[in-house]
Amino acid sequence: MQSVGLYGKKYIDLQTRKRNVELADEDHVIVKVKACGICGTDINFVRDWEEDYMPLGHEIAAEVIQTGKNVKNVKAGDRVIVEDCTMCGICASCKSGHPEFCRNMYDLEGQPGMGQYLSVRFNCLDRFEGLDFTVACLTEPTAVSLTSVLNAQIPLGGSVAVLGPGPLGLLSARIAKLSGAGFIAVTGLAADNPREKARLDLAGKWGFDLVIDCSSCSTEEEIKKRFPQGVDRVIVSAPPGGIYDALKIIRFGGIITFYGLHFGGKSKVELDVNDLIFRKITLKPTFAEPAINFPAAIEMLKQGLIPANDLITHSFGFDRAKDIMAAIVDGSEPVIKAVLLPH
Amino acid sequence: MQSVGLYGKKYIDLQTRKRNVELADEDHVIVKVKACGICGTDINFVRDWEEDYMPLGHEIAAEVIQTGKNVKNVKAGDRVIVEDCTMCGICASCKSGHPEFCRNMYDLEGQPGMGQYLSVRFNCLDRFEGLDFTVACLTEPTAVSLTSVLNAQIPLGGSVAVLGPGPLGLLSARIAKLSGAGFIAVTGLAADNPREKARLDLAGKWGFDLVIDCSSCSTEEEIKKRFPQGVDRVIVSAPPGGIYDALKIIRFGGIITFYGLHFGGKSKVELDVNDLIFRKITLKPTFAEPAINFPAAIEMLKQGLIPANDLITHSFGFDRAKDIMAAIVDGSEPVIKAVLLPH
Amino acid sequence: MQSVGLYGKKYIDLQTRKRNVELADEDHVIVKVKACGICGTDINFVRDWEEDYMPLGHEIAAEVIQTGKNVKNVKAGDRVIVEDCTMCGICASCKSGHPEFCRNMYDLEGQPGMGQYLSVRFNCLDRFEGLDFTVACLTEPTAVSLTSVLNAQIPLGGSVAVLGPGPLGLLSARIAKLSGAGFIAVTGLAADNPREKARLDLAGKWGFDLVIDCSSCSTEEEIKKRFPQGVDRVIVSAPPGGIYDALKIIRFGGIITFYGLHFGGKSKVELDVNDLIFRKITLKPTFAEPAINFPAAIEMLKQGLIPANDLITHSFGFDRAKDIMAAIVDGSEPVIKAVLLPH
Amino acid sequence: MQSVGLYGKKYIDLQTRKRNVELADEDHVIVKVKACGICGTDINFVRDWEEDYMPLGHEIAAEVIQTGKNVKNVKAGDRVIVEDCTMCGICASCKSGHPEFCRNMYDLEGQPGMGQYLSVRFNCLDRFEGLDFTVACLTEPTAVSLTSVLNAQIPLGGSVAVLGPGPLGLLSARIAKLSGAGFIAVTGLAADNPREKARLDLAGKWGFDLVIDCSSCSTEEEIKKRFPQGVDRVIVSAPPGGIYDALKIIRFGGIITFYGLHFGGKSKVELDVNDLIFRKITLKPTFAEPAINFPAAIEMLKQGLIPANDLITHSFGFDRAKDIMAAIVDGSEPVIKAVLLPH
Repeated sequence: MQSVGLYGKKYIDLQTRKRNVELADEDHVIVKVKACGICGTDINFVRDWEEDYMPLGHEIAAEVIQTGKNVKNVKAGDRVIVEDCTMCGICASCKSGHPEFCRNMYDLEGQPGMGQYLSVRFNCLDRFEGLDFTVACLTEPTAVSLTSVLNAQIPLGGSVAVLGPGPLGLLSARIAKLSGAGFIAVTGLAADNPREKARLDLAGKWGFDLVIDCSSCSTEEEIKKRFPQGVDRVIVSAPPGGIYDALKIIRFGGIITFYGLHFGGKSKVELDVNDLIFRKITLKPTFAEPAINFPAAIEMLKQGLIPANDLITHSFGFDRAKDIMAAIVDGSEPVIKAVLLPH
Repeated sequence: MQSVGLYGKKYIDLQTRKRNVELADEDHVIVKVKACGICGTDINFVRDWEEDYMPLGHEIAAEVIQTGKNVKNVKAGDRVIVEDCTMCGICASCKSGHPEFCRNMYDLEGQPGMGQYLSVRFNCLDRFEGLDFTVACLTEPTAVSLTSVLNAQIPLGGSVAVLGPGPLGLLSARIAKLSGAGFIAVTGLAADNPREKARLDLAGKWGFDLVIDCSSCSTEEEIKKRFPQGVDRVIVSAPPGGIYDALKIIRFGGIITFYGLHFGGKSKVELDVNDLIFRKITLKPTFAEPAINFPAAIEMLKQGLIPANDLITHSFGFDRAKDIMAAIVDGSEPVIKAVLLPH
Repeated sequence: MQSVGLYGKKYIDLQTRKRNVELADEDHVIVKVKACGICGTDINFVRDWEEDYMPLGHEIAAEVIQTGKNVKNVKAGDRVIVEDCTMCGICASCKSGHPEFCRNMYDLEGQPGMGQYLSVRFNCLDRFEGLDFTVACLTEPTAVSLTSVLNAQIPLGGSVAVLGPGPLGLLSARIAKLSGAGFIAVTGLAADNPREKARLDLAGKWGFDLVIDCSSCSTEEEIKKRFPQGVDRVIVSAPPGGIYDALKIIRFGGIITFYGLHFGGKSKVELDVNDLIFRKITLKPTFAEPAINFPAAIEMLKQGLIPANDLITHSFGFDRAKDIMAAIVDGSEPVIKAVLLPH
Repeated sequence: MQSVGLYGKKYIDLQTRKRNVELADEDHVIVKVKACGICGTDINFVRDWEEDYMPLGHEIAAEVIQTGKNVKNVKAGDRVIVEDCTMCGICASCKSGHPEFCRNMYDLEGQPGMGQYLSVRFNCLDRFEGLDFTVACLTEPTAVSLTSVLNAQIPLGGSVAVLGPGPLGLLSARIAKLSGAGFIAVTGLAADNPREKARLDLAGKWGFDLVIDCSSCSTEEEIKKRFPQGVDRVIVSAPPGGIYDALKIIRFGGIITFYGLHFGGKSKVELDVNDLIFRKITLKPTFAEPAINFPAAIEMLKQGLIPANDLITHSFGFDRAKDIMAAIVDGSEPVIKAVLLPH
């Protein structure tokens, strides 16, 4: 069947392409995408990516339309999350309980999650019930945030600073709290930026212990007032340079986890190895490939632990995609999470 | 194609059945079994199992003969280990990095590993190179032993007692040593039993620090001479009652892991909960389903870390199966690991 | 100085003895006990202990009165928790980061925590500020509960059943929730027992997901309705026999942690080892010696994460000690936690 | 009593000072230093340190001469290792099982380990028997290496590259092997440097799987020949710039641990955060303060797991200290570990 989908590159250069979607083989499934969130990585692409147009969108909630002959785990009508990058289930890593290190992954085969239909292998799908599609498309960012929290190994009652108030930052902060953190700080740069202001406001509404607007005060000062030795953990949900701030506020023996990429040339940091050693600071990245912890994320959404409707401030069709993305880039609108409804 | 296979029940009541093996579906693979080891569980079945005949054999090294249309991970001619019980790769446990808790496993579909041909799903296979089939069929017991060692969380330089000198016990002891244990004791009951004597002799040959023949001395006394507070870990590679011995020799805060089953009515133990609490003793079982750590086990065999030829004392065809099993049950022959060569 | 203290044995046979307390040596500190909670172990002693009178009380909040010449970590006037059993800080276990396995512990030197004054070594003290003494004496049970939760290794969003609604059970349930459990059930036997009823009522007030009165329904049925495969973790805050219930409701691969002792002959359980193996059930006890996690427990109390005043239903002087203990034993009063104020 | 001790700064500027050593207080112990190894950090000081003279030496084996009145753990005549930096045993970190994060450490109080006598607090001492003092002074580097191996969390059978063949590198490699690594590579820069050549030769003698002389070949090429995806773990026992090499040879999802300092201005590295994220590379430093794992290190030496006599190539008195240090700096002598015998 015909499917319209979205591709993009620098600078907010979007293309809507139409392609034919059919069952790639008897292990595949055709799904109708019902909702697909915009991720920071999509924004990175349309702001900084200089090479060929990238297919956009990987936070996908969908309905099964048609299944290949060999498919047994889902049937037409099922609600599913589509993982954009899936463990193979048969390699040495997968068979040893480490799917996070699988290198034989299944992916979207070049299709944009921000499209109308997709043909994907059966094992890329996580079935769910009892969730709206719009809420359900938060599964991917919830899972990434959950993984960052697990990577951070937060001690019960520990103090955590989350740098960056985007959807992943807010979710990471929330899940850190749910997982037993005793104190959560969230930082952002509000000033006159409506996007950033909306996000910091939500951090306040969600009751984090400290919300720092970096435009009017210093993260380091605010943290050190409360934790003179620094916080136990920092989650950098911001561009790579955020690691410099993290190093200023992390305690002796702390862990910094980070997942903020930059494609426009600002991905490097200079670190003092003596300092890392003398202060026993561990740097541990979080990366979303392959998909990990989607079932747990679905469960958290179903239990209402993530107030999805606070996060999802905008939904839109293909016609408004460019405007929404531009607004996220320049911060001119109070967008937290925006979701494409492709039908 | 026609395949002869072995089934058994109490008391050493074996049946050789002929069945037709063909591709069950396009995800399946037909393999020619080249070697299949006898496991203690097989012996348990033929000694104690009172219900219907059980298919025997699950330590399987084979060659791929024919592949279903959808199969991509192996091709005819490949050497493979056949897992008798395989993680699904798509459930919540598998997708969360815990295949060991998968409950949607693929199995041998009622076929005996001690057979000539099998039709199994593609994901049950682990490809290998550079190993004889006879050696390769040690993959399963090596993986089970490796899992028991991982479950025991042996501290570097720690002391470990392995109760029971069967193939799994010997492998567990060896892998415990490889993984950094500082002291290994192996116990067994030799007396005039040639089977047990051969096994204890091999424990000696492999250089474990202490080999205890329980027929002539007390495990507790021998251990306490060297470790008055007890050993750090005990691996019970013996029937359930071995846990009583384990409790006598484990130190404060120690871990006992165990995998010895009994089907003849002796599976229960009486434990003093006060004692477990006051001494902080953890009981952690090891169970082989689903298959875990097969790739790591293959790697250990390939690196020569497991002297397979010391372990494999007997190979046999269908005609001698009953004699071999009887000899293992009654201990009349110096059998350590016996391997069926079904062609 | 003169100090009155409490000793007890079966059956609710209490003695108040007067003894002289002075600095045992220059490493010691004299503290004035301000509050000391009654623990289930104290109740076990006065109900079941047949040998010599035991000194009672080990949940101690106190004020420093006098310090030995070598003591530098506290000074007169400081508020402190007195650990009843303290890691040495210099043995191989302590120097390897495993104080939980220290066997050279410092203790109360035969003094009852339920006394007016104590002479204890400096390292048995944890300084605190900003807490009432009555609240502060919950540090020990909070730390024990916290340790049980850590031992249970609860997965984020996991399901937990706490068997037994005593103070430790309620605290364990609360801390399990704080540490990220997604579902908490608490069980107890209310019927016409005011003690048990008060405790189950508090479980309801604290918002646990399921509170089961075993007098009117089956724990197994209630759990299986919601979790047909069983719960992820069980914390047995009940006598040893509670492990039988735990085994009925634990899922494949689950962990049971337990800390309920019995001194009256009911400490044994009969376990089917086959079942533990086939279901991969780990049994991991929790024991309070030496004191672990007291600083974290103080922090949780200070942050208000434990609603102490809900738990502490009774305070009393020496004159009412016997009545209170009798009421706890027979359940005739709605006692949750009772605290001795010895001055 | 009078004690001669060694201090140093840039460039190989040594001072021998005489000071009076007496019991600092009743918790202290006077020890007679019998052997003190030269560590890479000492060499760093005499090569690069521009500020005031630093006391040298912290790998100390000694005999107890006199004990303060409160000291109970050792007595005159005991053989002891002197930790240069010791956990307090009573802070929140120590009482929570994390002495590695203790910030209230006891130290050598400004005394050089390369001295004749020291007055140290009782808790800085680890008693040992059955070891020569010269061998025993390897306890500290063995413990540091052991800690680096534990930090690296090497999977059983995993591949490890150790960059730098100094005593710590050789020990780390050896302990990595003991703890279950399947493949060990050690790198160094031999060329015409007798020091480096001696070290690489010992790596060969100890049987590591691959010894790379970087003067004649590329670490990356040699590793990639055998492990096209890179090795599981890298231990950087080299100056900070070694991290660049580590990043070239680490596999997806690998861990790099590092402990090489630089005081002469070369402590910074520039890292690409995108790359760390995309490849899931964790950076985890190892630092020797406070002392951790000394008891385990003593045990390893006693069990003969560390061939101490291969490592200790030189012993010397105060008169030859400068020559030895100069030779280590310029590589002109085949020194691996050199030990001061101060009497």
